[in-house]
Amino acid sequence: MLNVYGVPLSPFVRKVHWALAHKGIEYNAIPTMPGDSSPEFRAISPLGKIPVLQDGDFSVPDSSIILRYLESKYPETPLYPQDPELAAQVCWLEEYADTNLVQACAVFFRERLINPKMMNKPTDEDAIADAQNNLIPPLLDYLESVVQEEGYFIGDALSVADLGITSAFVNAQYGGYSVDASTHPRLAAYLARAMQSPLVKDQLAKEEQMLKSFG
Amino acid sequence: MLNVYGVPLSPFVRKVHWALAHKGIEYNAIPTMPGDSSPEFRAISPLGKIPVLQDGDFSVPDSSIILRYLESKYPETPLYPQDPELAAQVCWLEEYADTNLVQACAVFFRERLINPKMMNKPTDEDAIADAQNNLIPPLLDYLESVVQEEGYFIGDALSVADLGITSAFVNAQYGGYSVDASTHPRLAAYLARAMQSPLVKDQLAKEEQMLKSFG
Repeated sequence: MLNVYGVPLSPFVRKVHWALAHKGIEYNAIPTMPGDSSPEFRAISPLGKIPVLQDGDFSVPDSSIILRYLESKYPETPLYPQDPELAAQVCWLEEYADTNLVQACAVFFRERLINPKMMNKPTDEDAIADAQNNLIPPLLDYLESVVQEEGYFIGDALSVADLGITSAFVNAQYGGYSVDASTHPRLAAYLARAMQSPLVKDQLAKEEQMLKSFG
Repeated sequence: MLNVYGVPLSPFVRKVHWALAHKGIEYNAIPTMPGDSSPEFRAISPLGKIPVLQDGDFSVPDSSIILRYLESKYPETPLYPQDPELAAQVCWLEEYADTNLVQACAVFFRERLINPKMMNKPTDEDAIADAQNNLIPPLLDYLESVVQEEGYFIGDALSVADLGITSAFVNAQYGGYSVDASTHPRLAAYLARAMQSPLVKDQLAKEEQMLKSFG
């Protein structure tokens, strides 16, 4: 059976869990924190990052590369469009989510959840204000200009764009942030649809258990 | 004809030039600095990054996504192996090159070329020493453990792993850095082979023109 190293509160690990659930592939989730220094983990994750996928003797790090590997090894219920241009667009949106969007969303997650509830550190309200006023708005404007009015983020099927974007916003949501429907109505409506999908609801129910342990 | 926005001294832009040359596709190179604020460029590069590929009405940023797009649109002389595991490995090596390796190599490029010769800023010898002593060694150790003794970096054909790794080391080389064959003999031998390939030599001859203008 496949092994997924990581913790699903990482937006990158969550993408892999979703992809496997979408494709109906069973797997073991092996709780591993980023930077884990065990030789076993470092042997399969040269940079110490999560997630890492292990498939028999083979292993590979990096959520985007894992998703692509799963697609070629397990092509049923695809996560990439056939059309080269649409495929490039969904990969670009995944990359956009995995970099700038994840970084901005992580501020809320860290300052409203991890630091005060796990690390006994006070919330940095300046960091929150900076994310709210400076980091997030241009990202929302761009996503609002791309997202479809109905259905998936783009295209006519679930894709890696949906996984990346929704996963980033889950972390923001854990930090009490939500997109304002009065300024970004299409994006807010998309996220409301995404959060109600069975794939997302099942995953979040599993994560709730872990979050409860933070008190 | 295709347009490639960027400057080839960027290791990411260089990857795209090489991929197009390898596939025998003609293109226009449109000199554009990262962060270029023209509305035309920002419309096709939401984060202001280079390279961006324009193919008719379609455009997409990010070198890795551009290479993947070129592969599906122009599949001849492939840059990705067919085997899912080997394909994931070359993509992982490309990612490793594009992140940690590029960052370490960039120190030499910036401190020995860009700052003293273009920006009239003194070389930060502490930054050079840190790169030399701390950043680079673990990266070389990892690459040494993976690279083949002969031929391409891995596998039996040129792949995106070769493009990413070689391109990163070109920037280090511009900054006077070279891999020590006494500590990392396989990697040093690989880079010597790669730098002698017609693809790399042709590209570097074009870049020489630009470098000469720095004096």
